[in-house]
Amino acid sequence: MSPEARTVLERCDALAAVSSSATGIERVYLSPEHARVNEMAGEWMVQAGMTTWQDAAGNQRGRYEGTEPGLPALLLGSHLDTVPDAGRYDGILGVLLGIAVVERLAATGTRLPFAIEVLAFGDEEGTRFGTALLGSRAVAGTWQPAWWSLVDAAGTTLREAFREFGLDPDRVGDAAHDPTDVVGYLETHIEQGPYLEEAYRALAVVSSIAGARRFELTLTGVAGHAGGVPFHRRHDALAGASEIVLAVERLARDADCVATVGRLQAFPGGVNVIPGLVEFSLDLRGEHDDRRDDVWAGIQSVAAEVGERRGLTFAVDETHRAPAVVASPRLRGFVRDGIAATGDLDPMVLFSKAGHDAMAVAELTEWAMLFVRCGNGGISHHPDEIVTLADVAVALDAFEAAVRAVATATTATTAQATA
Amino acid sequence: MSPEARTVLERCDALAAVSSSATGIERVYLSPEHARVNEMAGEWMVQAGMTTWQDAAGNQRGRYEGTEPGLPALLLGSHLDTVPDAGRYDGILGVLLGIAVVERLAATGTRLPFAIEVLAFGDEEGTRFGTALLGSRAVAGTWQPAWWSLVDAAGTTLREAFREFGLDPDRVGDAAHDPTDVVGYLETHIEQGPYLEEAYRALAVVSSIAGARRFELTLTGVAGHAGGVPFHRRHDALAGASEIVLAVERLARDADCVATVGRLQAFPGGVNVIPGLVEFSLDLRGEHDDRRDDVWAGIQSVAAEVGERRGLTFAVDETHRAPAVVASPRLRGFVRDGIAATGDLDPMVLFSKAGHDAMAVAELTEWAMLFVRCGNGGISHHPDEIVTLADVAVALDAFEAAVRAVATATTATTAQATA
Repeated sequence: MSPEARTVLERCDALAAVSSSATGIERVYLSPEHARVNEMAGEWMVQAGMTTWQDAAGNQRGRYEGTEPGLPALLLGSHLDTVPDAGRYDGILGVLLGIAVVERLAATGTRLPFAIEVLAFGDEEGTRFGTALLGSRAVAGTWQPAWWSLVDAAGTTLREAFREFGLDPDRVGDAAHDPTDVVGYLETHIEQGPYLEEAYRALAVVSSIAGARRFELTLTGVAGHAGGVPFHRRHDALAGASEIVLAVERLARDADCVATVGRLQAFPGGVNVIPGLVEFSLDLRGEHDDRRDDVWAGIQSVAAEVGERRGLTFAVDETHRAPAVVASPRLRGFVRDGIAATGDLDPMVLFSKAGHDAMAVAELTEWAMLFVRCGNGGISHHPDEIVTLADVAVALDAFEAAVRAVATATTATTAQATA
Repeated sequence: MSPEARTVLERCDALAAVSSSATGIERVYLSPEHARVNEMAGEWMVQAGMTTWQDAAGNQRGRYEGTEPGLPALLLGSHLDTVPDAGRYDGILGVLLGIAVVERLAATGTRLPFAIEVLAFGDEEGTRFGTALLGSRAVAGTWQPAWWSLVDAAGTTLREAFREFGLDPDRVGDAAHDPTDVVGYLETHIEQGPYLEEAYRALAVVSSIAGARRFELTLTGVAGHAGGVPFHRRHDALAGASEIVLAVERLARDADCVATVGRLQAFPGGVNVIPGLVEFSLDLRGEHDDRRDDVWAGIQSVAAEVGERRGLTFAVDETHRAPAVVASPRLRGFVRDGIAATGDLDPMVLFSKAGHDAMAVAELTEWAMLFVRCGNGGISHHPDEIVTLADVAVALDAFEAAVRAVATATTATTAQATA
């Protein structure tokens, strides 16, 4: 078994120990834990032969030059931030496999006809500020000034968090790549779903990524005494929200989309007080943007009906919106070649309902992704997230082979162009 | 208009300013705010001519002697603690009206054939430790040793909170009254319901108080990625809880009981994470204990069915249970006489779905209650809780008249006994 694969898993464990929570894994954007894992990833990048820097958006980056200095770079990336009570592979595995690929190239003194840049994005999950993909959007050059006023649960704005992390908000544009300086983007990621496991396969090539929309919903009724207020006089925000949660599930399932209410809190929160306010989140994804948007329209009309009937006010804030994105046929072919090089000659093709940094990078350059099986029914965003050493080893081989396939094609193209 | 009624409202405002929250009223048991309002109420008790003490459970008490020192006492009580984001009259008005009654007696040098003790209970709502009526249960002598290990949201046990407040847990028994030292218990309280307002009446006599049960419910599923886990593989604790919230409403309404889920929180709480755990509270009340218990049985069977279908585990902790209690016909007659003395010759009789300190004191002595109209549809446990000066004035007159009616009856009985 590949010793590098073992190292990758040991590094996953080392990063898992960096957490803001005593009982599980949690690392959010611009936190002390973010700074610590950047430092650790940076050291491993240096050991692999890269020059490193933390960019203007807090992403940790490393560069391995090609056959000559200053060539455009093939980007290998994923993220080091997590959801609350997370697993130890989501995002992390992709970053460490990128470093391991460079380590293998450097070990044999291999230089490719492009540089390789490994990117450890600081925010993919959006756990802290609600809006996701902040790290990769900074690199893609699609940072939105409106984000500066996003606030976390403690009331800290994104602008303040930048300063507290030692970053200058005015320089965030420096994190962006010029499209002419990049060759493309490859990302390896755990599947976070059950399909590879069900098919007894280790790897898949990703065809496209679902377009996600995220909303913060507020339902306002009237708080009141749990004993004193009879049902016909209640405006119970939680009973109303419960109807909406169930409608979300029913409408999304019927339309073959996925939708999740992940966060819900009732206020004021007294045992004997009718909830006057409920705040909850909605995450909505679909392979087809129009079908996803139909589901959202359906949810809104249920919410309006519930609000009317129960005397509740419904308010919506859309915090994230990404269209479905399709992998580049060319790069997707190289990932397929990479998997084929490991002996799986007809690789499985999967559509990703989970969002990934590749969605943001898609606005900068062409992209493709490699999925790695995760066990326990594909459980993810959960401490039970698991991968096997054997799968990591074959993923590393496939990822390296995919990078080499890009190099071979680039050399051929260059040779042709100069012929 | 009675100047004492105006003073009562001014004192409600003064107490409302003592809050642990910057944006609303919140005073919980054994908090610094609790200590501060005890001090304020104590000063007003002294001004009214009472001797005062804070008892071994943190209740503020004042005593006004009768025709001779050391006579058994008629208790006039209610509470000074609040729910989160509370109104300014729930409990508080009753304490201040008790003080105002004594003030009137003292102003005319009136001594009754019993002492009067005004009790400002430190915990009625149960906001901090989940279990309600802690103050009045200490006075009733029904304190349970098991409560010492109750914990608040910060992890502080009730025992520790006692010590931090300067109380000795081992002496809590000192707060209890000997039944032979008390004449009975009267409490004035806002209605916290719409019925007086709907009937254009200011006051009502209470017939009985609903028996409440409170539960902490936990629904455990499996957290997972909001994109990666298809619906057929989900064990979404929040979707399950939503079904239960709606069943609670439906079953209680059909049985003419009231039930409220006031607190609900989903964990881990990430926007893009399927909730693996939901904790929520249930407050259940009914005029008849058996019908209330039937509703609870119905809720449990819905929860079992939902758990089975969705692959969720359901756990229950009963935190509070009180049987329905009926007012003493004798004392209830005096309250009725007190209202009649204000010109309302056929007072309205109301059943209280809200719990009151009288429920706990019922285990010590006989009791009766006077309800005062509150406006805005009877809204309570909400900042919009409101009473009018006119209603407070007539409530004070009726409360004083009820106390004097008890005295008249006591004198007659004593005269008869000594004849």
